[in-house]
Amino acid sequence: MDSKPTLKDVAALANVSVSTASKALHHTERISARTQRIVFAAAESIGYRKSNEGRPTRAHSGLIGLVTSDYNGRFALPMLNGAESTLGASNHAALLMSSRGSPSLEKSHIDQLAAQGVDGLIMIQDTTGPRDALSLSETRGLPVIYAYAPSSDEDDCSIICDNVGAGFQAIEYLLSLGRRRIAVIAGTESFQASKDRVEGALRAFRYYDEQAVDIMYDIWSEEWGEHAALSLLDRFGDVDALYCLSDEIARGAIHGIMQRGLSVPKDVAVIGHDNWFVFSTNSHPTLTTFDNNIETIGKISAQYLIDAIHGHPHHGITTVECPMIVRESTEASRKTPLQGSGKIFSHNSKRRGR
Amino acid sequence: MDSKPTLKDVAALANVSVSTASKALHHTERISARTQRIVFAAAESIGYRKSNEGRPTRAHSGLIGLVTSDYNGRFALPMLNGAESTLGASNHAALLMSSRGSPSLEKSHIDQLAAQGVDGLIMIQDTTGPRDALSLSETRGLPVIYAYAPSSDEDDCSIICDNVGAGFQAIEYLLSLGRRRIAVIAGTESFQASKDRVEGALRAFRYYDEQAVDIMYDIWSEEWGEHAALSLLDRFGDVDALYCLSDEIARGAIHGIMQRGLSVPKDVAVIGHDNWFVFSTNSHPTLTTFDNNIETIGKISAQYLIDAIHGHPHHGITTVECPMIVRESTEASRKTPLQGSGKIFSHNSKRRGR
Repeated sequence: MDSKPTLKDVAALANVSVSTASKALHHTERISARTQRIVFAAAESIGYRKSNEGRPTRAHSGLIGLVTSDYNGRFALPMLNGAESTLGASNHAALLMSSRGSPSLEKSHIDQLAAQGVDGLIMIQDTTGPRDALSLSETRGLPVIYAYAPSSDEDDCSIICDNVGAGFQAIEYLLSLGRRRIAVIAGTESFQASKDRVEGALRAFRYYDEQAVDIMYDIWSEEWGEHAALSLLDRFGDVDALYCLSDEIARGAIHGIMQRGLSVPKDVAVIGHDNWFVFSTNSHPTLTTFDNNIETIGKISAQYLIDAIHGHPHHGITTVECPMIVRESTEASRKTPLQGSGKIFSHNSKRRGR
Repeated sequence: MDSKPTLKDVAALANVSVSTASKALHHTERISARTQRIVFAAAESIGYRKSNEGRPTRAHSGLIGLVTSDYNGRFALPMLNGAESTLGASNHAALLMSSRGSPSLEKSHIDQLAAQGVDGLIMIQDTTGPRDALSLSETRGLPVIYAYAPSSDEDDCSIICDNVGAGFQAIEYLLSLGRRRIAVIAGTESFQASKDRVEGALRAFRYYDEQAVDIMYDIWSEEWGEHAALSLLDRFGDVDALYCLSDEIARGAIHGIMQRGLSVPKDVAVIGHDNWFVFSTNSHPTLTTFDNNIETIGKISAQYLIDAIHGHPHHGITTVECPMIVRESTEASRKTPLQGSGKIFSHNSKRRGR
């Protein structure tokens, strides 16, 4: 097909009237599920994209659907809180459903949300690797925002953490403290979060003409952090800082350092990642760490979804800065902490891509 | 007023027709928010209770509202998962909103949910103490289930953990292992969870004609667990078991025991509470603990709400048993664990009160 496919092409292929095809694609009226599926399949097969020009005005339900793959709620609840605070201002309510990481449950939840008449969807992941883009027929043509993990289709709108920026900032900060023998203890190598944070760290080492003592990968556990720290101290007696890619790893690393009779941060400074209170503030030394800023991701996702619902969609990946929160594990003699929550370093969001 | 107040009394007091009063109380048609408030206030002031007889048939929206005070998602997500699995079977969808522990946000969320036409509400708390009952005008007459914490009005329907039963079972099990010098390390004394678990433990001591070495209260933290264990070992050298009322406390207690050169469970057996994976399975020894069975509470809450929506409300407190999961901290030489998740001791729900 040479020219851009039109609504007429979709209608002809689906063997329905142009008016029915339009109603099905824009959810303006109740159309049978079978007809809707046929029209979406036809639209998809010829690469038809809805234009916002001339789009029939549709009554908004005021409902937004959130579907999360997060099982324990660490990501879903802050995301919901952020989204609610933005949606409340525009009289929308958020309907959170839980897919427990099951693609088939995710699909049936989207169907159920579409049946409830939601105006749009926010898909929440609990890991940072790109996820499969949803097809037009899967989303029933509803606008979608991908939160925490990006969509595999870069034309989609995704809101994610700036893990590369966090990795850069971690190393830059440790260097500013005068540390020169810095090692990185990462989690699972195949995880995007490991890749991005390590990439950021390496950029900082190069930028400041320094080198990492070592970069070790294994799993996201406290035991691994302890094992890795012991191994590093045994091989490089002069290690003076550890950048750990999760709070659990950092907590284990601190135990390892203490087992060797060394102190944190005097002998070895330690940085974690995630600002998970269980590990970052519930023990001593409290952890310097990066906050994933999930609530802000929820807010921006909701704002961008409202924009899309009103015919002004965003595209590409938007990254949100993870603020670094400085606590006892890197600063020996702290002044009074800010409300016990540590100092927050810079906090804003920026745009990457288009 | 001698006789039972009728719909006619409500209508007269609110200065509306009987038909309008009925519509307002039963949400059968759109009635102005002002009229609805007046009718509910009138109904409340004379103690009018809706009868299910002669109730006008109302179109169900298929939406259920969940409002959680849980900020970090530990309770809200399993509760949502449980509720969804029950609601899905009856074609209802759950709309979860987050009140962050703010009563005013809770009220505005209920208003928003009522405006979306939900058929009923589940109120989720993240602590176990009784919460204020919602008034008829606050709930707009919608059926409500209170989950995890009971309502202060015992006529309401509440679904909670059987913490008394868990406390009893913990001590009974430690005694069955031959331990006779058992101490209890509790959390904050004013918390209902502390009170109930300690009450259950004391019942077991009495039942088996044994005594607790000591019962110590402070806060729900790892540091407190460590401090309390050290204090107990210093004062009572022969302590051979600790029943800790949270996994964090248990984890800290294990550190304390190890600091004295003793081993778990050989010298001292340790039981926790909550089955929070962060503490219970992510380290060694893995923890014997009680699961709060939140997903089951979510399922039962949803089922009871569906019953209420269909005119068959439940009343009073229903307790759900917390299964004990046996892991390394109480059993030195374990056989192969069941799927790594430990052995589950009994698992069912029972009814208390009416």
